[in-house]
Amino acid sequence: MTKPLLQLALDCQEMNTAFTSIETIKDHIDIIEVGTILAFAEGMSALKQLKQKYPNHILVCDMKATDAGSVLARMAFEAGANWITVSAAAHIATIEASKKIADQYGGEIQIELYGHWTFEDAKQWVDLGIKQAIYHRPRDAELAGIGWTPNDLEKISSLSKLGLQLSITGGITPESLSLFSPFNVKAFIAGRSLTGNNGLQMAKNFKNAIQKNW
Amino acid sequence: MTKPLLQLALDCQEMNTAFTSIETIKDHIDIIEVGTILAFAEGMSALKQLKQKYPNHILVCDMKATDAGSVLARMAFEAGANWITVSAAAHIATIEASKKIADQYGGEIQIELYGHWTFEDAKQWVDLGIKQAIYHRPRDAELAGIGWTPNDLEKISSLSKLGLQLSITGGITPESLSLFSPFNVKAFIAGRSLTGNNGLQMAKNFKNAIQKNW
Repeated sequence: MTKPLLQLALDCQEMNTAFTSIETIKDHIDIIEVGTILAFAEGMSALKQLKQKYPNHILVCDMKATDAGSVLARMAFEAGANWITVSAAAHIATIEASKKIADQYGGEIQIELYGHWTFEDAKQWVDLGIKQAIYHRPRDAELAGIGWTPNDLEKISSLSKLGLQLSITGGITPESLSLFSPFNVKAFIAGRSLTGNNGLQMAKNFKNAIQKNW
Repeated sequence: MTKPLLQLALDCQEMNTAFTSIETIKDHIDIIEVGTILAFAEGMSALKQLKQKYPNHILVCDMKATDAGSVLARMAFEAGANWITVSAAAHIATIEASKKIADQYGGEIQIELYGHWTFEDAKQWVDLGIKQAIYHRPRDAELAGIGWTPNDLEKISSLSKLGLQLSITGGITPESLSLFSPFNVKAFIAGRSLTGNNGLQMAKNFKNAIQKNW
């Protein structure tokens, strides 16, 4: 199994804050994510600016596209995204349309696992050639104190066995990474823990934990 | 029952196109929607510009918010939105968080009915005080030739009986509005049909059809 990557999620509302967050830890992260908040705040200009400044990082746009998949995908890939996220709640035709555009740009689609998705859905995604999905505790569920459960790990295991590479997010810590060592993990996604005062040390701790567990 | 409103969905990628689309039909529409495409293309600046130019129209931001509901809602209401959309796939805590912010701004939340939502979900939304939902054929399903079915109308009827005001969208025509006359319709949402060469006439036809059926 390849080693999981480390992804910085930018959920700020201004580019200056985004650049400051990246500069401190840029040598310790593999993926830069324009979070939904930043994408809605600044538009596709955020992707263009980040691609220009950090051409060697993988750039993700967390659009959670739910409809109009081909238009949204084209906008984001055209602006420099390598990967975009599409909601698990999107119609299969929307996912297929996004995937076609991703293929044209050499990009990838990540399915964001929100809502009442089923393993039948997941099989359809895999059949379309989708390789990645994102498993997370919703921010607000996290705030409501709902943690990682055996049920979460079981779902991650099943999705991993279907052939999907999983990115894991939602209040993860370096200490918690070992929970996911049996699975096909593409990346760990962190936001606030990498952008706080202790961000650089946290980035190193995440990388060490990945090194240790994979 | 109050008469349904007419909503223009702006799914262009540039503000100039948006302004041109609105100018022709501004006296015949009640609601201006910054579609997901325009919101991701231009960011919250799109809302600010439209609110300034058209302060008397209801302004909607179609964010399909799926997580981080309070941050996204605050951004959009702060930029001038009167209503925002939240995905049916969002965790109930996310919907609750968005609703709290909407209440602070005197705004409203519209639930976008994508994915495998259930009537149990819909009851939870109503219990939170949510008043609106949007029922539509996904753009890509529409392209795949999937039309309005008796099953669609049954769902709309059930949601209407739960107390939700429905906005209806997805390739609607003035001729098709009568299908929805038994229900609690908040608005009909059209995009391409109102922005084409025949937009002004179409807007008038929609208004006449609303007048005739309600």
